[in-house]
Amino acid sequence: MITREEQRDAQAYAAEQLAAAGIVLTDADRGAIEVADFGLSRLREQGLMLLVYVNTDRYCAKELVLYPGQECPEHRHPPFDGTPGKEETFRCRWGLVTLRVDGREIVLHPGEQFTIPPDTLHSFRAGPDGAVVSEFSSTSRDELDVFTDPNVRRGTVVG
Amino acid sequence: MITREEQRDAQAYAAEQLAAAGIVLTDADRGAIEVADFGLSRLREQGLMLLVYVNTDRYCAKELVLYPGQECPEHRHPPFDGTPGKEETFRCRWGLVTLRVDGREIVLHPGEQFTIPPDTLHSFRAGPDGAVVSEFSSTSRDELDVFTDPNVRRGTVVG
Repeated sequence: MITREEQRDAQAYAAEQLAAAGIVLTDADRGAIEVADFGLSRLREQGLMLLVYVNTDRYCAKELVLYPGQECPEHRHPPFDGTPGKEETFRCRWGLVTLRVDGREIVLHPGEQFTIPPDTLHSFRAGPDGAVVSEFSSTSRDELDVFTDPNVRRGTVVG
Repeated sequence: MITREEQRDAQAYAAEQLAAAGIVLTDADRGAIEVADFGLSRLREQGLMLLVYVNTDRYCAKELVLYPGQECPEHRHPPFDGTPGKEETFRCRWGLVTLRVDGREIVLHPGEQFTIPPDTLHSFRAGPDGAVVSEFSSTSRDELDVFTDPNVRRGTVVG
């Protein structure tokens, strides 16, 4: 659970970081920034801010924004609807992000990218200045994600 | 046909415009910028610069860069391999781009986006300051594109 204030602060932070990365947002974009605490109630440590540009039944594109040191907990994208599950490419835009993919560690600086195969365990954590990361992928179905930590809930309660 | 100098100038221009849009490139990215004149030998009027980030058998992401007033000629992405053809979302990052989609005109400023259905005729032209446009899509198979102008050739001869 996060408070309304945490949500508002995180949205404002994400909008600022996207602007720092040169990414222009509309007012509608700013209002659509999702704040996810993964049900762990420690947003600054475990969580993520997301802006989905498009998510069709064929492809998806998002911006991900992380607080300094914030981590998106380990998970995988399982097969669904006869597809092998979500395949995704992370391209770092600002700051630094460290991916852990099947136990391997990959550090991405701005301009560097890495593609994670479907149904493969991964997590990622921002460096000391936070991170802005573009995600290009096949269709996104966040509600199907399988997390290693059984306490994770993909939906975030705000109240 | 374009000269080596036209190619080099266009790559340098594209790298500068991407930097102006806040997009960080690696040296490998800069070397991979494609310059397309569509076989019309009037690059500044009819053409496009492209940087492909990723193109898997499921999704694709590119940056498109246009000279001031430069147009990508009308074409469509036909069905292939049992798919309905490429579906693509254009998001303007810098400058201004005018899309023509099935006769309809859509002007995109930075932060604005539009999704073009598969197999639908479209062209696009940059405004007076040029344009940087992110393209998110299903798999890209440029060689299958069907152009309205029979003189168009998708491959560009440099010499």
